[in-house]
Order: sequence, then structure tokens, then C-alpha cells
Amino acid sequence: MKKFLFLFLFGITAPGFSQEQTSTEDSLEIRKIYDMALLNGQAYNWLEHLSLKIGPRLSGSLNAQRAVEYTRNELEELGLDKVWLQSVMVPKWVRGAKERAYVQTDATTRREIKIAALGGSVSTPANGTKAGVIEVQGIEDLARYGEKEIKGKIVFFNRPMRADVINTFEAYGECVDQRYAGAAEAAKYGATGVIVRSLTHRLDDFPHTGSMTYNDLPVSKRIPAAAISTNDAEYLSSLLKLDPTAELYMKINSRQMEDVESFNVIGEITGSEFPNEYIVVGGHLDSWDLGDGSHDDGAGVVQSMEVLRLFRELGYKPKRSIRVVLFMNEENGLRGGNKYAEMVKQNKENHIFALESDAGGFTPRGFSFDAGDSQFAQIEKWKSLFEPYLIHQFDRGGSGADIGPLKNNSIVLAGLRADSQRYFDHHHSDNDTFEHINKRELELGAATMTSLIYLVDKYGFNRIRNVEEPKM
Amino acid sequence: MKKFLFLFLFGITAPGFSQEQTSTEDSLEIRKIYDMALLNGQAYNWLEHLSLKIGPRLSGSLNAQRAVEYTRNELEELGLDKVWLQSVMVPKWVRGAKERAYVQTDATTRREIKIAALGGSVSTPANGTKAGVIEVQGIEDLARYGEKEIKGKIVFFNRPMRADVINTFEAYGECVDQRYAGAAEAAKYGATGVIVRSLTHRLDDFPHTGSMTYNDLPVSKRIPAAAISTNDAEYLSSLLKLDPTAELYMKINSRQMEDVESFNVIGEITGSEFPNEYIVVGGHLDSWDLGDGSHDDGAGVVQSMEVLRLFRELGYKPKRSIRVVLFMNEENGLRGGNKYAEMVKQNKENHIFALESDAGGFTPRGFSFDAGDSQFAQIEKWKSLFEPYLIHQFDRGGSGADIGPLKNNSIVLAGLRADSQRYFDHHHSDNDTFEHINKRELELGAATMTSLIYLVDKYGFNRIRNVEEPKM
Repeated sequence: MKKFLFLFLFGITAPGFSQEQTSTEDSLEIRKIYDMALLNGQAYNWLEHLSLKIGPRLSGSLNAQRAVEYTRNELEELGLDKVWLQSVMVPKWVRGAKERAYVQTDATTRREIKIAALGGSVSTPANGTKAGVIEVQGIEDLARYGEKEIKGKIVFFNRPMRADVINTFEAYGECVDQRYAGAAEAAKYGATGVIVRSLTHRLDDFPHTGSMTYNDLPVSKRIPAAAISTNDAEYLSSLLKLDPTAELYMKINSRQMEDVESFNVIGEITGSEFPNEYIVVGGHLDSWDLGDGSHDDGAGVVQSMEVLRLFRELGYKPKRSIRVVLFMNEENGLRGGNKYAEMVKQNKENHIFALESDAGGFTPRGFSFDAGDSQFAQIEKWKSLFEPYLIHQFDRGGSGADIGPLKNNSIVLAGLRADSQRYFDHHHSDNDTFEHINKRELELGAATMTSLIYLVDKYGFNRIRNVEEPKM
Repeated sequence: MKKFLFLFLFGITAPGFSQEQTSTEDSLEIRKIYDMALLNGQAYNWLEHLSLKIGPRLSGSLNAQRAVEYTRNELEELGLDKVWLQSVMVPKWVRGAKERAYVQTDATTRREIKIAALGGSVSTPANGTKAGVIEVQGIEDLARYGEKEIKGKIVFFNRPMRADVINTFEAYGECVDQRYAGAAEAAKYGATGVIVRSLTHRLDDFPHTGSMTYNDLPVSKRIPAAAISTNDAEYLSSLLKLDPTAELYMKINSRQMEDVESFNVIGEITGSEFPNEYIVVGGHLDSWDLGDGSHDDGAGVVQSMEVLRLFRELGYKPKRSIRVVLFMNEENGLRGGNKYAEMVKQNKENHIFALESDAGGFTPRGFSFDAGDSQFAQIEKWKSLFEPYLIHQFDRGGSGADIGPLKNNSIVLAGLRADSQRYFDHHHSDNDTFEHINKRELELGAATMTSLIYLVDKYGFNRIRNVEEPKM
């Protein structure tokens, strides 16, 4: 019995000891990564260019093309083993100038309201549309009011993001259906237009745009849809209580053009030992056409580029092939993400891991992993290596939109999780600008991503998802 | 052997089980605290008033007095059991108008530099002082250059905060001696003035002031000292390499006045079971005279007030007496903190715990505890209750300047630890303003503080510090 106990204890401590050996080397390497990112980082300079010299990068726009060329050139400057563009056809939606809206209570009283057409919205008639307004708290309210009360009106979706949810992405997820499907649903009841309360906790004056769908609604039935600021939503809601007959005028001049050619930008350091095993790190190069897309997702783009630059600067030669992929068209189509995954499938490329940064350039808090049980068990052993950098969250859950199409029964997907409290202050609005980027926060994110990829490259992954941890 | 093993396992699991019982109730209570803070918080409104209606609150100023009156009134509105002012004499230093500096390279070329006299600095002669500049990387450099090279010159302390330190307060701690003691030390070598690179990682145009000391230097030997922005420091350093004979002109019109009466503002909910055991929560009401002191430490003030308001709103009746103390004169004297501790000693009040928030109103990450071993072991058991709120740091270390004087051999002290990355972007400068406060981050801090105080109130503390954890 004693002997058994001894072996039992030894059986427990031996792997711990071996892990400790590993950890010391890994600790030192990770320290070097953070030091380089913080002392001699490039991400902030790249983002400054992308945001201030180029600006917003809606798919199909001239700016998007300039961003493609700029980032390709910068990747080429790094001396990677390969840099190339992957052609992808993307939708081209144009907002058009002079969007306008006002609320009218009587013949002489108008209050201007700032609107931003949702991405993909049809235009109003050339001289705008004017109608009474019905406020609802969500799509589920439409059936309750029915065609009788909705027909001929503008539907005002006003369910706010919940403040008592700690992770703001969760609160966003609970409300985004109003923006995404509100117009398609309201049109079924004969609404003539839709306005949506902006998806942010803050009370401010920025309309926040975003994607929407008409699903299979015939073109003739499609109605225009726009975001209004939270302050205007509060105002309009109060006004409608006092004067339910108030009317809203809105004018949108958007156009959906033919698809145009654009590109994913890809760079690679080819692996020294397992060149046919791929690790992807990326963000999306396109943004909405408001602000300059610094947080969404300029930050993710430059952090991903920085991962490969840091390996180069540190003289770290990965065993596996590391690819940075700057995806085009995450915001209104995901064409780039789908196209990349298609290519992987066609070429039978063996992707073992993909990491996306698309949650803003704020202080990194950790990662969310879409992984099998044994894979996650392996990942969790790395957690303590990140604690000196105040990275504590190793959760299981979603990863990133662009890398989603890579999912199969062996790859591990992950998303960088940044502090989420300020993200929706900026998201998809004129308030997403470079001045709201903190250099250190951005750099810490890049270092955190690089450290994780270093570990994945070094140790690889158990390649079978959704199995139980093997018994000791 | 089997029986022994059974008891052994039972001995481990039993306390766990009992803790779990407690945790469920505590989890629910803490959830209520966060919900109330986020859905119906008052901290942000209070801070808006303190920052925008009152503004900077340097000790001895009219604004400081207005802040005393405002916060006393607001605490009275909460219907606490007691609200009072504690008189304390504070230093009154006045910056004076028209600080000015420029760098002169030849008779016709001047470049203006923005300066901010350090708090407590003497003025220059009425028409300013002009001298050559010697750049040093710290106080330790002074002896190396010696009187020969320093006498008659302005010493330029230019050691930057290290970027590779993750916690920015640590990087600050490594540099602050230049600001605090630079003038006193440089004067010993015959310098005529001192300028100090602002203590921030950012390259920007804000001079960041802060406290300084002349130690026991006779009045006649004291030399003026000012902060310059990091951008100007970079410029000046480059210039001096090209032209070591460049001269700096500086003019400061500060005055040290007689001490004046001011106040700590104190509110109390008297304990229902142990009214003679006190728990203190506080921040400091004074600020520097630049910006509006939103992060330093308006945030800590309103978060501390919010702790008591949340208890009131939730109908939670503490067993122990909970005091909010808004300390006066943390920045340039600590008179309020010392005065409060004196009173505690005189009245033999039994203080078991004090918590200060003075690290900015950013996303809370946890606490730093100044506690004995067994006390900290008790505290660590609470850690998991905070994880749903993404609070992961329960460290041992310092607490807060104002509560430091309360230290004895039984009290536990703690400081709220907020995300530190942006703190020094704002600290002691015109950039510390209300627009840089995020409502949710501020409220999460208040809820985190309230939750900890709820636990301390409920369970009390082992009252002996620095003993080993009792054996099981």
C-alpha cells in the first residue's frame, strides 16, 4: 500500500516537474515577446497609417483597395517567405451622400435626427419617405401589433442593450436581431421603413451602422433601414409618448452595386519542421464606412501582422507554417473568410489552429477557444504562463467570424478577448477612430497573440476534437 | 488505512461543502450589487458634477471647499446614520498664472515649451531664469557630473517610464524619484532649476505635475522645478545633442501660502450587530489643479460614496459600521489621511478593514491586500465569487496612501486595482478629464468594492496579522 502510494504520488508529480522545465524556457521566450512588442512595437504605427492615412475601408471601396496594397507592401517589407493576394469578389454597397431625417410634430416644428443607413439598406424614394412611427421593443412585438397598426408606418426598434450583462458582446448578441432582421420582418407587416436604436450602452449622438438582411424578400418589398443614436432614440421614445402622431421623415441615398474584385492579404513564414501544418492569425481589413475602423478591425489587422514581425525580430523560426490572413469583407458578406476556407479545402492544406483578433484593441484579457476536450485540456496547461501579463480568461466558446469557415473536426479556433467595456462606444460609428486606441493596450494584445501562437507552434495539438482527456 | 483515507478525504471536502453553501447566498447578493450599480448607478452622475460643475480641487482652493460641501450634501441625501466633516489644516500652494518656458538656440530662435510647475515648487525670479541645460537620466547621475558641470545650469531629468513593465504603477515607481526629489538633489550641486520629463508612457503634449519635496534644504537654496511634456522632452533631448549650448528660459509664479482649514468628509452606516467595528472605504477629494481630477481621484470618491448608497438601495443592513471617508490633501501632504488616523487612535476606534480606490476609474481587475497570512488565506476563499465579473487579481501588496496611516497589527488594508494601462495618460495633467471616464468601467469598480465590503462585513476578519495559517 505504501509502495502504491509512492508510485501514485510520483505519477502525479513527474509530469508537473517536466512541465516546469518546459515552462521556464517558455516563460523566458514569452517575456521576450512582450518586451519586443512593448519596447519596439510596430502595430501602433501601422494602425496610425491604416486609420489616418487611409481611413474607413468598406468592401469594394477605393480605401479598401488602398489598405490591401499598404498591408501587402508592409508584409513584404518584413521579409516573410511568401506574401500574396487572394482574389475574392465582394459586395459593393454605397451609402450615398446627404442621409437625413427629422421628426415632425406639427406643421412648423421639426427636429433633425442623425441617421446612418444600415449596410445593405435600400434607398428611400428620391425625396424621402415620411410616416408615423410605431415603437417596438423587438421583432417579437411585430406580431402583437400586426399589420393593422404597422402598415404604412416606420417601425422604431428601441430595445436597449442590457447594462447588467458584464460582457458587452453578450448584451449586443441579445439586441442585434433588431438591426439585422428588423427591416425584413417589419416589411412583412407593411412598414415603410425601419429605424433602430444604436447598439451601444452609452447615451451619445453617434448612429452605429452594421449589417442587415432582407432574407428572401422580393426587391419590391424591401424597405429602408437606418440606425439612430441612443440620445435620439431616447428623445423619440419620450416624444411618442406625448405625441403618438409625430411623423418621421427619412431620406437615404444608398446603392447596391455589382460585386467587385477585392483581396485577402496573406503572408507566411514557412515552417522549418512541419511546413504542411498551418497556423493562421488574422483580423479583417474591411471596416464600415463611418469613423476609420481603428478598433473594428484595424487593431486586429495590425496585431496579426505584428505576430509575424515579432517572430522575425526575435529570430524565432517556427516549426509550422504561420500565416497572417487579413480577411476582406467580414462586415457585410464574409466573402474573404469563406474564400480562404475554400482554398484550404481545395488544396487540402492541414490547418491546425486559427486565431482571430476582432474584439477591439483594448487591454487583452484572454482567449475564447473553440476546441475539443483534450485540446482544451492541453491549452489550459499554458494558462499560468500568461498570468504575469494579467491574462486570466481561457474560456471555451466562439472564435472569430472570418476563421469560422475553417472549422472541421480537428482544427482549434480561438478569438482574442479584449476588455469589452468600451468596445460598443465605438463600434460601427464615427466614434471608432485612432485617437481611441491606446498604444500599450494594442501592443499587449499583439504580444498575447504571439505568445499563444508560439506555444501552439512549439507543441502542436492533439488532432482529435471532442474526445475525453485520455486516462493517465 | 482505508478508514484513515476516508476521514482524510472527508476532512478535505467538508469545509468545501460548507463554503459552497455560503457562496450561493453570497453569489446572489453580489449579483444584486452589480445589477444595481450597472442598472441604477449614481457614481457617474456624481462624478459628472464633481468634474464638470466643480473641476480641479487642489487642497486649500475654493473648488476643494465646494467639493467638500457638495459631497457632504450628497451623503446627507442618502439618509446615512451620520454625516460629518473632520477639520484638517492643509497646505495651500498656488501655481500662479503665466508659467512659461522656451528653448533658445541663438539670439533669434526660440521654441516655446509648455511647463507645469511641480506642486510645492518655489517661483523663479519675477522675470524668469535662463540657463544652459544638462540632461541626466536620474538622480544618481548628479554625482557623476558633479558641481563643475551642474552649477548654474537647469537640470533636465529625462529617464522615461519603462514600457516593458506590465503594471504601469511599477514603471511609475521607478521614475518618480526624479520628480519628487530631483530639485532637492540638483540644488546641492548648484543647479538653478529643474525640469522633469512627464511621467507617462505616451508621447503627447501634456506636462504632468505632481508632488515634490525640498527636504531640509534652506529656503534660500530652493530652486524651481517644473514638468515638461514627453514630446518636449524628446525634442529637447535631441536638440541638446545637436547644440549642447542651447538655453532654457523658465518662469514660474507659484506661491506657498499659509495653511488653511479644510475637511475630510465622512459618512457612516452604523453596524447593527458590531457597531464598534469599523470598515472604511474611501478616495481622496483633492486633486491637482490641472484637468478636473476625474480619474485622480474623483473616480475613487464617487465609487466610495456608491458603496454606501448601494447598501442603502439594496436594503442591506451591515453588521459592522461602514464609513465612507473622502480624504482631503492626498496629493500634497496626506494631511487628511493622517488626521483621520489620529482620530481613530484617540477615540480607540476598532477599525478592522480599510479599502481605498485611487488607481483611476478604469475596468477593475482586483485588489491588492496588505494583510497577514491567515487574513489573506481567508480573503482568497472569496476570489471565485468575483470571477463572473472578470475580477481575477487578488494580490498582496500596498493599499492606498490615505489609509496607510491606519496600519497597525490587526487591520487589513486594501486598494482597488483597476486596469493600469491608460492611467498615466491622464495622471496629474490637463488630460485627466471627465470625457475619459467610461460609465460602465466606473460602475464595475464601485460594484467590486461594494462586494468585497459586503463579504468583510458579513464574515469579519481573523484579527491577528502575520501569523501562519492555523493547521487544519
